[in-house]
Amino acid sequence: MDQTAQKTWLVEENRFLAERQNHMETILTQGNGYLSTRGTFEERYPLDRQATLIHGIWDDIPIAFTELVNAPDWTSLEIWISGQRFDMSQGKVHNYVRYLDLRTGILHRALRWSPDNGINVVELSFERFTSLADQHMLAQQVQITPLTSQIMIRVRSSLDGHVDNEGYLHWQTVFQDCTPNQIDIQLRTRKTKKLLAMSARLTINNPNAKPLTNDSRGCPGIETIVYQNMGEPLILRKIVGVATSRDSDNPLGLAQDKSIKASTNGYEKIRLANTQMWEDFWEKCDVHIEGDDIAQLAIRHALFQLRIAAPTRDKHVSIGAKTLSGFGYRGHVFWDTEIFVLPFFCLTQPEISRNMLCYRYYTLQGARRKATANGYEGAQFAWESAETGDEVTPPWVPNFNNPLQLVRIWTGDIEVHISADIAYAVYQYWQLTGDDEFWCDMGIPILLETAIFWGNRVEAEGKHFSIRDIIGPDEYHEHVDNNVYTNRMVQWHLGKALDSLTWLRDHYPEKHHLIIKGLDLNKSLLSHWEKVRDNLVILQDPDTGLYEQFEGFFNLKEVDWPNFSNRTKSMQELLGIEGANVHQVLKQADVIMLLCLLRHNYNEDVWRINWDYYNDRTDHSYGSSLGPAMQAWAACEMSLPDLAYEHFMRAAQADLFNVRRNSDDGIHAASAGGLWQAVAFGFAGLDISLDRPRINPRLPSNWTGLSFKITFRGNCYEIDIKPGHSSIKVDTGSY
Amino acid sequence: MDQTAQKTWLVEENRFLAERQNHMETILTQGNGYLSTRGTFEERYPLDRQATLIHGIWDDIPIAFTELVNAPDWTSLEIWISGQRFDMSQGKVHNYVRYLDLRTGILHRALRWSPDNGINVVELSFERFTSLADQHMLAQQVQITPLTSQIMIRVRSSLDGHVDNEGYLHWQTVFQDCTPNQIDIQLRTRKTKKLLAMSARLTINNPNAKPLTNDSRGCPGIETIVYQNMGEPLILRKIVGVATSRDSDNPLGLAQDKSIKASTNGYEKIRLANTQMWEDFWEKCDVHIEGDDIAQLAIRHALFQLRIAAPTRDKHVSIGAKTLSGFGYRGHVFWDTEIFVLPFFCLTQPEISRNMLCYRYYTLQGARRKATANGYEGAQFAWESAETGDEVTPPWVPNFNNPLQLVRIWTGDIEVHISADIAYAVYQYWQLTGDDEFWCDMGIPILLETAIFWGNRVEAEGKHFSIRDIIGPDEYHEHVDNNVYTNRMVQWHLGKALDSLTWLRDHYPEKHHLIIKGLDLNKSLLSHWEKVRDNLVILQDPDTGLYEQFEGFFNLKEVDWPNFSNRTKSMQELLGIEGANVHQVLKQADVIMLLCLLRHNYNEDVWRINWDYYNDRTDHSYGSSLGPAMQAWAACEMSLPDLAYEHFMRAAQADLFNVRRNSDDGIHAASAGGLWQAVAFGFAGLDISLDRPRINPRLPSNWTGLSFKITFRGNCYEIDIKPGHSSIKVDTGSY
Repeated sequence: MDQTAQKTWLVEENRFLAERQNHMETILTQGNGYLSTRGTFEERYPLDRQATLIHGIWDDIPIAFTELVNAPDWTSLEIWISGQRFDMSQGKVHNYVRYLDLRTGILHRALRWSPDNGINVVELSFERFTSLADQHMLAQQVQITPLTSQIMIRVRSSLDGHVDNEGYLHWQTVFQDCTPNQIDIQLRTRKTKKLLAMSARLTINNPNAKPLTNDSRGCPGIETIVYQNMGEPLILRKIVGVATSRDSDNPLGLAQDKSIKASTNGYEKIRLANTQMWEDFWEKCDVHIEGDDIAQLAIRHALFQLRIAAPTRDKHVSIGAKTLSGFGYRGHVFWDTEIFVLPFFCLTQPEISRNMLCYRYYTLQGARRKATANGYEGAQFAWESAETGDEVTPPWVPNFNNPLQLVRIWTGDIEVHISADIAYAVYQYWQLTGDDEFWCDMGIPILLETAIFWGNRVEAEGKHFSIRDIIGPDEYHEHVDNNVYTNRMVQWHLGKALDSLTWLRDHYPEKHHLIIKGLDLNKSLLSHWEKVRDNLVILQDPDTGLYEQFEGFFNLKEVDWPNFSNRTKSMQELLGIEGANVHQVLKQADVIMLLCLLRHNYNEDVWRINWDYYNDRTDHSYGSSLGPAMQAWAACEMSLPDLAYEHFMRAAQADLFNVRRNSDDGIHAASAGGLWQAVAFGFAGLDISLDRPRINPRLPSNWTGLSFKITFRGNCYEIDIKPGHSSIKVDTGSY
Repeated sequence: MDQTAQKTWLVEENRFLAERQNHMETILTQGNGYLSTRGTFEERYPLDRQATLIHGIWDDIPIAFTELVNAPDWTSLEIWISGQRFDMSQGKVHNYVRYLDLRTGILHRALRWSPDNGINVVELSFERFTSLADQHMLAQQVQITPLTSQIMIRVRSSLDGHVDNEGYLHWQTVFQDCTPNQIDIQLRTRKTKKLLAMSARLTINNPNAKPLTNDSRGCPGIETIVYQNMGEPLILRKIVGVATSRDSDNPLGLAQDKSIKASTNGYEKIRLANTQMWEDFWEKCDVHIEGDDIAQLAIRHALFQLRIAAPTRDKHVSIGAKTLSGFGYRGHVFWDTEIFVLPFFCLTQPEISRNMLCYRYYTLQGARRKATANGYEGAQFAWESAETGDEVTPPWVPNFNNPLQLVRIWTGDIEVHISADIAYAVYQYWQLTGDDEFWCDMGIPILLETAIFWGNRVEAEGKHFSIRDIIGPDEYHEHVDNNVYTNRMVQWHLGKALDSLTWLRDHYPEKHHLIIKGLDLNKSLLSHWEKVRDNLVILQDPDTGLYEQFEGFFNLKEVDWPNFSNRTKSMQELLGIEGANVHQVLKQADVIMLLCLLRHNYNEDVWRINWDYYNDRTDHSYGSSLGPAMQAWAACEMSLPDLAYEHFMRAAQADLFNVRRNSDDGIHAASAGGLWQAVAFGFAGLDISLDRPRINPRLPSNWTGLSFKITFRGNCYEIDIKPGHSSIKVDTGSY
């Protein structure tokens, strides 16, 4: 691979900048579908945001109910060169480079450092990874080579339990121990009493380096001091086993087994196993873009970040809005997962998308509690969901400027469309995979229980039904009535719920019988669903096909856009919450989002008139991070690939270049998932509504090629697009 | 001193009970007026609440704005006996005793411990103190004596920066270092950027015990391993210097100076200096009760706890509701300080009470901001006050049962009487000390600026003035009108404000001129104050003298008291917030409190009718912790010393025996201060309204004697009460 091509696999920096460290930590996040570790430095720096977040390890917090708990820092490594603590903000640094290799998931760092202005100089080389081959295994290596003379090197490697969630402590250390070659720690969350264990084993290549234990409270470790000869690298390798009480009744035993096994096999072997798993992933999931290195790197980075956050084996967790890469939204799961992220997994790694949908099935109990609490029947999914499916949207947050005036967050109460979004995702998964088992046992129950909620939630008004006092995808407008996106998706949802019963009766009459009985789906209820489906208010001009986003939207004030042409803030910040609410300005696609999801129902004229109306009224630059990628897809549907490309690059740069200035909090998962959809459904024009996938390419003019693979109903398809020559063909090896 | 007499100086336990540890930590709190350290064990236990709180070291938190930050654990000490970590919940413990000696402020612990069922046994003896002679000096000693054979002993002594405020982190370590005999750490608060430094020096009596550095991140320490001969004590002494950026631009330098100086002088010398300072304190402040060891111990413990929380030199801090002894109320300062705690200091250590009132003067700017924010002129003191005097009452707290329904805390908005309470305390301080300088430069400005607020806050209604929508001392009733306590105190306040101007004009015409000009106290304003003073609604029956606590109180429902005779909860818990609000039930003395404060204005008949009405309607057992001591005083005024004694003992046992079950959060400062007032103003009948103090003893029948000293306008008086023979005489040495 030539050097340029290689660059499209590497997320790198050539200079350590303290003020950029939180952004770099996010985009250099590594993981394996079980946990993720942010790209903090082993030696730690002030104001870094060190974090290892593990799926399912929740603990209680004030206001926002629960959050994923930051696990002990397994990378902790302190180094002294000639008695001086290694610190890149002190001494002299040369030849610094750090990069995350997306092909292997390995984070590398190399530099030369002198504590004393060149008298003593060492070369330092770090690497670390979270094994994709065994999710309980983490590994780290450091090489330290004296370049000037024999140098005294002191190294201390620890499992550092002194970690916090942005200043909040969740752990109590319940056990710690160290011997000259093993470090153990076990901790318990303060409120939820979950256990987490880590067990590390160390090897050092220099027999003169005698390991000494150092079990300081909450931070057990091993250290050594050695006089290292010039030119000879001191190599320290640390292999860490990690397990929780979600994995085993004896997590410490499991973690110890893992680290012992791994160190018996040896570092090279587990490194190789990890690399092979990443090769397999890219073989199946890579998107290859020619002629545009930034777009190429961005899509790969997005897919890498999605993969490491996706539960490989766990059916009781899903991907949060910020993946496992930061403290933003505290690990909570939104509609982002089903509508933005899931299609990539459905079409490349359906077993993972199945896990994520099982999570929704297993949290139905919380959704039922939410419906009951709101006075409804059935199941109403939480806007923000965590361990149990109960609503965990913080109902209030302090107003930064005036704490007497708390800001009420309404999304948990009235952003109801998520229940239809999840039904949509469940149905889509079934359509793309043909997984009847899931569809029968989990999918249809989800559809039906949420349909019961909808049948109850709608309000009869004469012949019609309304859904009032809600928030649609465009969150600039709260407490609206008959939001088109919501109502149309509910209409779709009820239709599919009714269809699913017919299908079940035809294919699995026993199961049909049981579910009819179990959920008391009597005739009058089903005919009520039909009536709602047929008479739900859908605000659309019958002549032109133009939708009105919600009741009264067309009567809102128009924004004087030229006045805002040079803005650097969102329209909501500029107009105020109340101001945005009374203007025709969208935080993100709302009607257009609907057109994308139900695209086979809309002809070119409907697309055109709605596009023309809403595209210009959307806050593409500073509105929702969910918007740009979807807008790119929509622009492709309008045959505007170069405009689509502008939107696409907004999403592509969101994290890599921190253009929204909030990547410190974690990866924008929806934007990453949207990028893949913009490529597949947008630029490639992938159509999966038929028996086999078709494409309808419309590449941006600077792209000279696009190729990727998908899995559709058990078959793998290779899509290869070049200007003037495109193909889609079934791979011989079925998935 | 015989053993019984000695017991009245010792707060002790003879058994380690993990479930009682938080209570013991509170009542064994040590301090020196600069900082306090809770009585946690050096080796730490799960669920302990380790804390060292330092005056003025505030950092931001959500909801409650700011809190005193828990400083590094300077007592941190880990001990291994034959390789087993010393832990009283493991192995065998014998002859355990722990006690705080109130005479010296030294906390002692002694025990025998065996890790291995008697094969190896050691005797351990600990002591530690926070020097009252030099507030920047802390000291600790441990003696470990093998009793069975030569034993391998390992000891690690640290400055442990891994500390939190109930799970919340405030520190960032900015520097740490250790050498074989010195440990340094410097930290910075995350938001307010205050620096704190500690520097420790260690001495070990066994020359074979070589000290090794152990600077693990955030917890620098020194450790040693030694084979100690049977019967020979290993003695480790640690002297710690502590300083903050409030003390010096170079707090680490100051802390180092202190620890070096102290270790040069030697442990014995600084121990002696501390003991002497405590002797001086007790010489001046002890209250000697004969015939009642529990009351004797309780009053000494209360005075000890008040003394260690009182700012010896600092004019910018004051005593919080829970002193420096726990996390309750986060260090915030309430009216508790001026009305309940201050009289003890005014009459025994006036220089300390002056510091506490200076704090109010220096926080006037915050009080002005509060008045402005509420639309008033002048200065309105915060209900909860911290560094700046701005209001820091949490406006909302989550409802434990339903987070959607936050509980609105109204005290910060409408419990307005604190501004009059502070004026009262300022005037009282002046009256008791004759400190004209404070009175002119700080006292009168406080009185006048808050009087401006009152003139603005009252509402004119025809000829009368009302104060509506407030909370009085009885917090069971919110949003009341014309609370008698408040209105009468405001009336008093405006009267004294006007008097103060006359006094100032007569004594310091220049200052009078300046303040009239500076505060724009024009004639119309002063005549407005007069009008308010003379026409403020005071709800009192002109015939009987019975006050109505607030408008409509007499119309509220009566509680059916016999129904609640065996209760174990507060009346508010039993009736609900709304229920208590509509009943004639008081959380604490309200009208009776007023009678106590302005006692020289009320004759026996007024006392009688109000006492009879309100005493029976007050929740003495489970209402406010502020109540019992004041009620004891009031009962003495009613010549009911044995009833007074019941109330007194409720207050006396509040912390020592944790009868309110919330001592884990810290000492009840107001209750402690109230105890002294109950003794002085109640049982001794001390009257300081005249040129020299008088007494009017009314001892409870089980007391055979009561003696204490007071300082009044520069003279020291000795009060000595025996049944049938009492005296008060001026001491020869003036204060």
